[in-house]
Amino acid sequence: MQFSINKTFFLQALSITKRAIGSKNAIPILSNFKIEATADAVLLTGSNGLVSIEYQITQENPKAGLLISSPGSILLEANFFLNIVASLPEASIDFKAIDHHQVVLTSGKSEITLKGKDVDQYPRLKTFAAKKPLALSTSLLKQLISETAFAASTQESRPILTGVHLTISEKGELKLVATDSHRLSQRQVNLEGAVPKALDVVLPSRSLRELSSVFSEATTQVELYYSDTQLLFKSPEISFYTRLLEGSYPDTDRLLSSQFETELVCQTKILRSAMERAFLVSHASQTGTVKLEMTKDLVSAHVNSPEVGKVNEEIEMESFSGSGLTISFNPTYLIEALKALKSETVRIRFVSPVRPFTLTPGDESEAFIQLITPVRTN
Amino acid sequence: MQFSINKTFFLQALSITKRAIGSKNAIPILSNFKIEATADAVLLTGSNGLVSIEYQITQENPKAGLLISSPGSILLEANFFLNIVASLPEASIDFKAIDHHQVVLTSGKSEITLKGKDVDQYPRLKTFAAKKPLALSTSLLKQLISETAFAASTQESRPILTGVHLTISEKGELKLVATDSHRLSQRQVNLEGAVPKALDVVLPSRSLRELSSVFSEATTQVELYYSDTQLLFKSPEISFYTRLLEGSYPDTDRLLSSQFETELVCQTKILRSAMERAFLVSHASQTGTVKLEMTKDLVSAHVNSPEVGKVNEEIEMESFSGSGLTISFNPTYLIEALKALKSETVRIRFVSPVRPFTLTPGDESEAFIQLITPVRTN
Repeated sequence: MQFSINKTFFLQALSITKRAIGSKNAIPILSNFKIEATADAVLLTGSNGLVSIEYQITQENPKAGLLISSPGSILLEANFFLNIVASLPEASIDFKAIDHHQVVLTSGKSEITLKGKDVDQYPRLKTFAAKKPLALSTSLLKQLISETAFAASTQESRPILTGVHLTISEKGELKLVATDSHRLSQRQVNLEGAVPKALDVVLPSRSLRELSSVFSEATTQVELYYSDTQLLFKSPEISFYTRLLEGSYPDTDRLLSSQFETELVCQTKILRSAMERAFLVSHASQTGTVKLEMTKDLVSAHVNSPEVGKVNEEIEMESFSGSGLTISFNPTYLIEALKALKSETVRIRFVSPVRPFTLTPGDESEAFIQLITPVRTN
Repeated sequence: MQFSINKTFFLQALSITKRAIGSKNAIPILSNFKIEATADAVLLTGSNGLVSIEYQITQENPKAGLLISSPGSILLEANFFLNIVASLPEASIDFKAIDHHQVVLTSGKSEITLKGKDVDQYPRLKTFAAKKPLALSTSLLKQLISETAFAASTQESRPILTGVHLTISEKGELKLVATDSHRLSQRQVNLEGAVPKALDVVLPSRSLRELSSVFSEATTQVELYYSDTQLLFKSPEISFYTRLLEGSYPDTDRLLSSQFETELVCQTKILRSAMERAFLVSHASQTGTVKLEMTKDLVSAHVNSPEVGKVNEEIEMESFSGSGLTISFNPTYLIEALKALKSETVRIRFVSPVRPFTLTPGDESEAFIQLITPVRTN
C-alpha cells in the first residue's frame, strides 16, 4: 500500500472518523483506525461497536490531493496516528506500508515509521442491501435531533429511555420522541411524498448527537438505509452506522392531551434568563425547584432557600388566559426545553399544579411539543 | 452598604479578583470575596493564602458606572456570586446589604437575595510601608516570567526549586532564574537607572504565572513594593500580593560556563517542529529520549522505539562550527526551551555528550540563556 495525500484534508477526514472511536474503548482493537487503499480511493474506518464511521477519500476529490500507487490495508492506533499526522511539516504526506505491518510517513525532511496491526483482527461492519434508500435533508435531521435527543434519559435503569423513538409512516410522516419520564420532547414533520418503507426504531441518543456533529452543513443530504439491527446514514464521503436499541418504546401519545386550563405566552429569552437565575440558587440549595405564580395581572418565579438565598423574578407576558395557577418544577427541565425552542415566543399550557404542562412554539410554526412534569410541594 | 454598578465592569473586576481564589481552597473562608464600599470606591479582595488580589473600583472610572449610596462590607461565596452577577438581566446592578449579612441584588425585574458572612471572619492582608516603590514595565515583566517560570520545578521534594529566583542589584540589574535541576532558564535585563533598594527573593512560579494573567497589556506599568515575607505588584486598580518562598536558592551562576566545543545555529520553528514529532514517538514508548547527531554536513534527530516506531528528522542548519557530536536528551525540555525563545534562530552550544548544553537567541538580542542536561545512553 502506498499513497500520497494532502495533510489538511487527511487530518480532517481522520478527525471525523475518530469521532466513532472516542477516548476509551472497551474492545482494544477498536482503538485503531482501519486504513484501506483500493485502486481509486482510501477508506478510513472507526468504530466503538455502537457507532461506526467510514470515510471515503477518492482520487477525484481535488482537495484530497490523493494519488494511490498501490492498494493495501492496515490498522493504526487512532489517537497516536492523528497526532503524528498533525505534527508533520509539509502540506503533502507520503504514506507507505512496509513489512511487519509497519507504515512509513514521509513529509519534507521528516520520516516517521509506525508499527501497525493486521486488518484481519478488525471486526467487519454490517453491509446493507442496496434497497432504495430514503433521502433526508441534513439540516432538517440535525434540527430534529437538537429538538429531541436532549430529553432522553441518561440513566441505564430503563435502557429503552436512553434512546430516541423514530417513526416514519408510509405517507412520509416523520416523528421523533424522547423522554426520561420527567419530561418529553416530540417533533413531527412531513417528508415530501411517500417513503419506500415505514420505519419504527429506537436510536441511542448518543449516536444521534454524534451523527449531528459528523455531518456538517456542507453535506446537504443523507441517505437512510435500514436493517433489523442498524441504521446507516450515508453521504458521498461519510457512512455513519448506528446500532438500534432493542425493546419496545412506551406509548407516549397518550401523555399528550390537548386539554388545558391556563395558557401563558411569553418571550423565550426572558423566561430562560429568569430560569437560569432560579436554577443557580435552587441548585446551590436543597430546594431544587422553582415556583411559578400566575395571575392574569402578574407572572412571577420564586426560589426560597433558607441556606443560600432567594430569587424573585417578574416575567413579562405576551398573553395570558384561563385561571390563575401556582406550580413548582425543576428549572433545569424548563431551561433545556427553552434552549431547544428556536421560536421567539413560547406557549405554555397548564392543566393543574400536579399535571404535566406543555410547551409549544408561540407562533405554532412547527409540530413541536414538549412536556414537563411538575414537582408536588406542600 | 449600597451601590449601583455596571454589570460588565463588575463582572470583569470580580473575574480578575477570583483568580487568587482558585477552584478549591484549603481554608474555607477564603472561598469568599470580600466586598467593601468606602465613600468613593468599592474594594474587592480574593486570596488563597499564597496570592491575594485587591481590585479597587472608583467612582471616577466612567466604565464602572459606580454610585455609592452608603459604605459597608460583606463576604460572599466567590463562584456562586460571580455566576449570579453574570446571570443578571440588565446592564446595571443595584447591590444592597440588608440585615443578617444578606445582600439584595436588583437588576431589571429580577431581585436576588444572597446570604453572606461577616467580614470579621476574613484574614487581614499585610500592609506595606509606603516606601518609594520600584516601577516596572508590565509587558517586560510578563515577558521575563514567560521566559523563566516554566523551568521551575513542579515537585515539592525541593520546595525552593518550585520558585523563581529574582534579584535586583542597586545598579538596576534585574535577573530571574528558574531550574528544576534538569534544565535552567535565566534572563537578565538592565532597568533604566538605579533602584531604591537591592532585592534577592524567591517567588513561587505559580504566583508569577497568575501575575501574568492578572495584569493585561492595558496596564503599562506596575509598582513593586517589598517586605520580608511578601511582594506587592500594584497598578492603580489592581494590587497583587504574593508570599515569598523561604530558604536560600542554589548558586546557579557556576553552572553557566562559556566554554563550548560545538556550536549549532538553526531556525527555532524548524527545530521545535522536529522535536514535537520526536516527542510523540518517544513519549508513547519507554524511550523518552531523542538523539541529536551533528556533523558539519548534517544535523539529524532520531528516536527508535522497538514497540512504537521510529523518527528520523533532518534539521536544516544556519551554521555549524566545532567538532561533530551525538547527544541524547528529553525532547520535552528542548520543546519548552524553544517555546520560551522569541527569536527566529537559536544558538546551541555543546561541550560533550554528558555535559549540559546551552541555548541562547541566535541574534544574541537578549541576555537570555537556557541550559538542558543530557541523558546518558550506551
